[in-house]
Amino acid sequence: MTPEEKLISLGIQLPEAPSAVANYVPWVQTGNVVMTSGQIPWVNGEMAYTGKCGGDVSVEEGYEAAKVCAINAIAQLKAAVGNLSRISQILRIEGNVHSAPGFTGQPQVLNGASDLIFDVFGDKGRHTRTALGIFEMPLNAAVQISIFAEVDSE
Amino acid sequence: MTPEEKLISLGIQLPEAPSAVANYVPWVQTGNVVMTSGQIPWVNGEMAYTGKCGGDVSVEEGYEAAKVCAINAIAQLKAAVGNLSRISQILRIEGNVHSAPGFTGQPQVLNGASDLIFDVFGDKGRHTRTALGIFEMPLNAAVQISIFAEVDSE
Amino acid sequence: MTPEEKLISLGIQLPEAPSAVANYVPWVQTGNVVMTSGQIPWVNGEMAYTGKCGGDVSVEEGYEAAKVCAINAIAQLKAAVGNLSRISQILRIEGNVHSAPGFTGQPQVLNGASDLIFDVFGDKGRHTRTALGIFEMPLNAAVQISIFAEVDSE
Repeated sequence: MTPEEKLISLGIQLPEAPSAVANYVPWVQTGNVVMTSGQIPWVNGEMAYTGKCGGDVSVEEGYEAAKVCAINAIAQLKAAVGNLSRISQILRIEGNVHSAPGFTGQPQVLNGASDLIFDVFGDKGRHTRTALGIFEMPLNAAVQISIFAEVDSE
Repeated sequence: MTPEEKLISLGIQLPEAPSAVANYVPWVQTGNVVMTSGQIPWVNGEMAYTGKCGGDVSVEEGYEAAKVCAINAIAQLKAAVGNLSRISQILRIEGNVHSAPGFTGQPQVLNGASDLIFDVFGDKGRHTRTALGIFEMPLNAAVQISIFAEVDSE
Repeated sequence: MTPEEKLISLGIQLPEAPSAVANYVPWVQTGNVVMTSGQIPWVNGEMAYTGKCGGDVSVEEGYEAAKVCAINAIAQLKAAVGNLSRISQILRIEGNVHSAPGFTGQPQVLNGASDLIFDVFGDKGRHTRTALGIFEMPLNAAVQISIFAEVDSE
């Protein structure tokens, strides 16, 4: 299955790649590497998950928020490369979790992004990851991730 | 106009590229990519903007702090490549805003860096960005940014 | 001396490269660049340094925690490239220090990683660095770093 077919099999319809919320662009390519801007959990133009994980946002909700961020990041990658089969490797998820005091479950939250990336890209989805508990977030978003991906040269 | 001419037209004199404050270097190049260390708002050897945005630092002051960080990052890029016309693309601003509790205006603060980069580099300044609200900062700096840039091969 | 010999002369035995704690991998290579996942201070499968620097963790303990993170990162690089002499440049340490309120000594803590990298890699260890004071951390780790390194093409 192609990544696009895999997304359909998971019941996921890629959104329009979200626009940048300020004076920057949502992705760039240099050489064989595409990098996205920070992706937050936009759904249909609304910020779907706000607040602090481990506080007003549960780990389960945080997991869903991270999944939505990953869907938006995949939409950016598709905007960048046209055909997701051109992605030869997901290199990195920079994972940032808006965290309540004392919360240490950032890895569990970010698995919402990592699990989806593995489901969609298979072995090509084997990525590195960072996981930080962030104090405050733009628009009070619950999660923010960036993705770096390698593109096949053609 | 070259980036250097554009800086002059904006009334900006590039400082000496600030030294690293500890045991590291301010920039490296690998292949066609230059990356800077985290830049904080040094002006003439003084930390010009300290404190938390949304608290003792207003959004407008934070915007100026981010602009100073970007000026310092451009000075690093110039130290790296000699001639800023060799920069073919600003790839990324990693934006970190020292934030007071509840502050969500990180994008507005970081536009101080992004707006300058667009002014100086034009279309080649179209960069990706991350925006995080950071709890504590070295030297109590109000903002810290890093820049990744692509350099023309010659 | 090779980096491996230098490690021995410093009395450091590289551990098994720590596994990822969730659904991701500890390093990837793209082109000539290897990047690690976030490394935290694991020692023999135990989290050796927990808590907030400037609070329950002193600057000296934080320095040791950062050094342990760097040892683990070097173990990842060795897993990636086989022979550390193949590393032509350490490009970057992304430094994240779990910080108590008001703590501004992130650079002093992160020197525990930077000093070791210089000791082991010499001039090839001249890296860029970021330094952030992070609110909460996975597993309450005191420090988290990632390393980017350039590998000789062969």
